[in-house]
Amino acid sequence: MNLLLLEPADFEAPGRVSLQGRRADHVRQVHRAVAGDRLRVGLIGGGMGEALVAEVSPAQVVLDVATADLATPPPAKQPVILLLALPRPKMLKRILQMVTTLGVEELVLLNSYRVEKSFWDSPWLAPEAVREQLVLGLEQARDTVLPRVTLAPRFKPFVEDVLPGLMAGRRGLLAHPGTGTACPADVRGPLLLAIGPEGGFIPYEVERLREAGLEACDLGSRILRVETAVAVTLGRLLPPQVGA
Amino acid sequence: MNLLLLEPADFEAPGRVSLQGRRADHVRQVHRAVAGDRLRVGLIGGGMGEALVAEVSPAQVVLDVATADLATPPPAKQPVILLLALPRPKMLKRILQMVTTLGVEELVLLNSYRVEKSFWDSPWLAPEAVREQLVLGLEQARDTVLPRVTLAPRFKPFVEDVLPGLMAGRRGLLAHPGTGTACPADVRGPLLLAIGPEGGFIPYEVERLREAGLEACDLGSRILRVETAVAVTLGRLLPPQVGA
Repeated sequence: MNLLLLEPADFEAPGRVSLQGRRADHVRQVHRAVAGDRLRVGLIGGGMGEALVAEVSPAQVVLDVATADLATPPPAKQPVILLLALPRPKMLKRILQMVTTLGVEELVLLNSYRVEKSFWDSPWLAPEAVREQLVLGLEQARDTVLPRVTLAPRFKPFVEDVLPGLMAGRRGLLAHPGTGTACPADVRGPLLLAIGPEGGFIPYEVERLREAGLEACDLGSRILRVETAVAVTLGRLLPPQVGA
Repeated sequence: MNLLLLEPADFEAPGRVSLQGRRADHVRQVHRAVAGDRLRVGLIGGGMGEALVAEVSPAQVVLDVATADLATPPPAKQPVILLLALPRPKMLKRILQMVTTLGVEELVLLNSYRVEKSFWDSPWLAPEAVREQLVLGLEQARDTVLPRVTLAPRFKPFVEDVLPGLMAGRRGLLAHPGTGTACPADVRGPLLLAIGPEGGFIPYEVERLREAGLEACDLGSRILRVETAVAVTLGRLLPPQVGA
């Protein structure tokens, strides 16, 4: 946790936060904070700054944090929509965190022929469960703004009815093996990146995505785990946000 | 497992392999192979091709595989040495696999001020434990050649005595936050990439690495997990090996 994220509901009075549970444990055990210390905090969807530790007890951690203390804006999102075939639940959690950490602005979890049907029943897809992973990703990156996450459990209606709207004003890329064209690096401007499931999108799906304007590009002959493919491709495509 | 990797010791006679344990389970349960099927196999350090399933029984899986069947060369390694501050054991396993999957030719696990001393006592650093993760990475990527992994538990002697030899003929890059120079993309030719521990290399260490010829470069203000930083940076630096 590189940033202690506060929710509006944590404020028991204006300027006064009371924490229990995971975040309070972290303040006690990792920061080993005592009254009088200052902690780096951010408000979900808002600014970042420092809070003053007012109390550390077994029951709660109390912080003093005025709105004026949260004057640092969060880092800008990367202008990229990631269209990802729904990964297996175990991997989903890590990918949600990672995608958030990397500053992706929107994630669409898409069905594909090679996505196991049971994945759509995972409890990890419940909105609260997804949000929990996103928050962990924000805490890691020092960001406060949740990415948008949407589910597209039906491939064809999504590609026909939703994808054209997402693609408006964006360059679309589909990371797909065997196309022979290397995925580009440092692409400027709004992007949409599609990454298939283990085993890849089937030819029908590739065809539909191409018709929607996505350019297929290749990451090489090595078969990557989905998680690795996401990080490698975003690392290539997105210019580092340096000196902000 | 995208490639069933065979060890010389698996051959009970020339051209005949007997498997037990994890790999036999995989053939039975994931491939659901029966006698007469063909499986994609590779020989550790050697070629790749197809084997004929001769027997599937609870006791063993027997494959017929002649040397001539293993005529496909493994993919070329990426000409990069990764110099990585020793990560925490839990992360080490995944990173060993990932680095192997990405085709890194050599990995040096380095001490740093911010590496917890206890990490060096991890059973996951034993040669057999490391090799196990590397093999999983090769199976994922469809490669047969183990990367070289060395340990550098003392920073200063490594940087003074070993690093100059590794740097000969290579461009050296150090991914380090706050330098203000974005890490380059698609670097051609032999590379050495250094990535610090959680919290980064300390200024003394950065100074020594720079003296050794490494250029510091920046991935942006977001704080990435080591695992993510490794994938993102390698994804940027290494041109995809397309159309091999």
